[in-house]
Amino acid sequence: MSTSAPTTRTRVVREPQRGVYDREVINQILDEAFICHVGFVIDGQPFVIPTGFGRVDDTLYIHGSAASRMLKQLSGGIPVCVTVTLLDGLVLARSVFNHSMNYRSVVVLGTADLVSDPQEKLAALHSLSEHIAPGRWEHSRQPSDRELKATSVLKLPLRECSAKVRTGPPIDDDEDMSLPFWAGVLPLELVPRTPLPDPKLPSDIAIPDHVAHYSRTRR
Amino acid sequence: MSTSAPTTRTRVVREPQRGVYDREVINQILDEAFICHVGFVIDGQPFVIPTGFGRVDDTLYIHGSAASRMLKQLSGGIPVCVTVTLLDGLVLARSVFNHSMNYRSVVVLGTADLVSDPQEKLAALHSLSEHIAPGRWEHSRQPSDRELKATSVLKLPLRECSAKVRTGPPIDDDEDMSLPFWAGVLPLELVPRTPLPDPKLPSDIAIPDHVAHYSRTRR
Repeated sequence: MSTSAPTTRTRVVREPQRGVYDREVINQILDEAFICHVGFVIDGQPFVIPTGFGRVDDTLYIHGSAASRMLKQLSGGIPVCVTVTLLDGLVLARSVFNHSMNYRSVVVLGTADLVSDPQEKLAALHSLSEHIAPGRWEHSRQPSDRELKATSVLKLPLRECSAKVRTGPPIDDDEDMSLPFWAGVLPLELVPRTPLPDPKLPSDIAIPDHVAHYSRTRR
Repeated sequence: MSTSAPTTRTRVVREPQRGVYDREVINQILDEAFICHVGFVIDGQPFVIPTGFGRVDDTLYIHGSAASRMLKQLSGGIPVCVTVTLLDGLVLARSVFNHSMNYRSVVVLGTADLVSDPQEKLAALHSLSEHIAPGRWEHSRQPSDRELKATSVLKLPLRECSAKVRTGPPIDDDEDMSLPFWAGVLPLELVPRTPLPDPKLPSDIAIPDHVAHYSRTRR
């Protein structure tokens, strides 16, 4: 599947020229990010919770802790919205009105289900771990049966989804172009700083490459 | 008001020791961040949309474009959840199970209303602008009446809100402490890069201080 045909619910209405339904673009955004915001509804009240996620082909796996209490009460899954946002810069225009941000975001709608099969759960946790810190899985103790049981993971098909992307300089009105204000983009980037070893770590354990050279740029 | 007594809806249930109801802490998180994720419900389906926001005392102002179509159909406001997340680092433990993230997040529940009073709308846009890029308001053309009318802003009282904060090193099980894996925290920070002037900018307009020395650290 190379495109996700927009539904009436995922079609980008505001600034439609920013809408992207190409699955490759959607996957790139999902793979560069590692925090999502999960929305669900209890008694008509929306809740939005940040959590980590992973992707395996056409399935998104999210840590189910936030929504799992709710899921237990329902069979057949719960309607969710999973939103992933990468902030790329502030767009500083000559007019307040034309200020904007450069960003890449993905919205996935659908029904989230608890992963119950132990094998699928293990694979989901592997994808979550490798998604957040590639190489980490092999550099830590893998989950025991007890830990697997204590962890809840939700799955959501990447079926009804769309991306929204803004790039480039500010777009000002013609009559504002001669105003004496600086205009442009201030790029923003999430960068890793110097790793802080656990105070209890033996001094002979060196910082491994996957931590020392951590980068969100995807292979 | 110095604390927000938790309601059954904002009390932190999972990892309750991370729950913070101190309004000063909540305000600090809100003031350091500038992107929020707004959750609202249409026909039982939650939607989560990223947008900018500002704060004036006990009121949160958010760009209403995302939810405004919906608001127009309703009188008396809509139930929303506004979530703000600052990611501070990856917590890399000796076991996969004890991996975590250091973060500071705020969840605000309540009813969002369109700001209709022009004076309040102008003040709200000022707070949004100064929140995202302090100093920007005076360095750009301020909104015309036509632009004010074309902009929708939502207000949400900071009444039902809570924060959740995790800091510090990983916490591993005793029996894992002698495993030969590196453990610690990889700090993450959103940093500004070199400003990119608009290609159409006259070369005699220098980069102003509020852009050259941009920082999310709050006064």
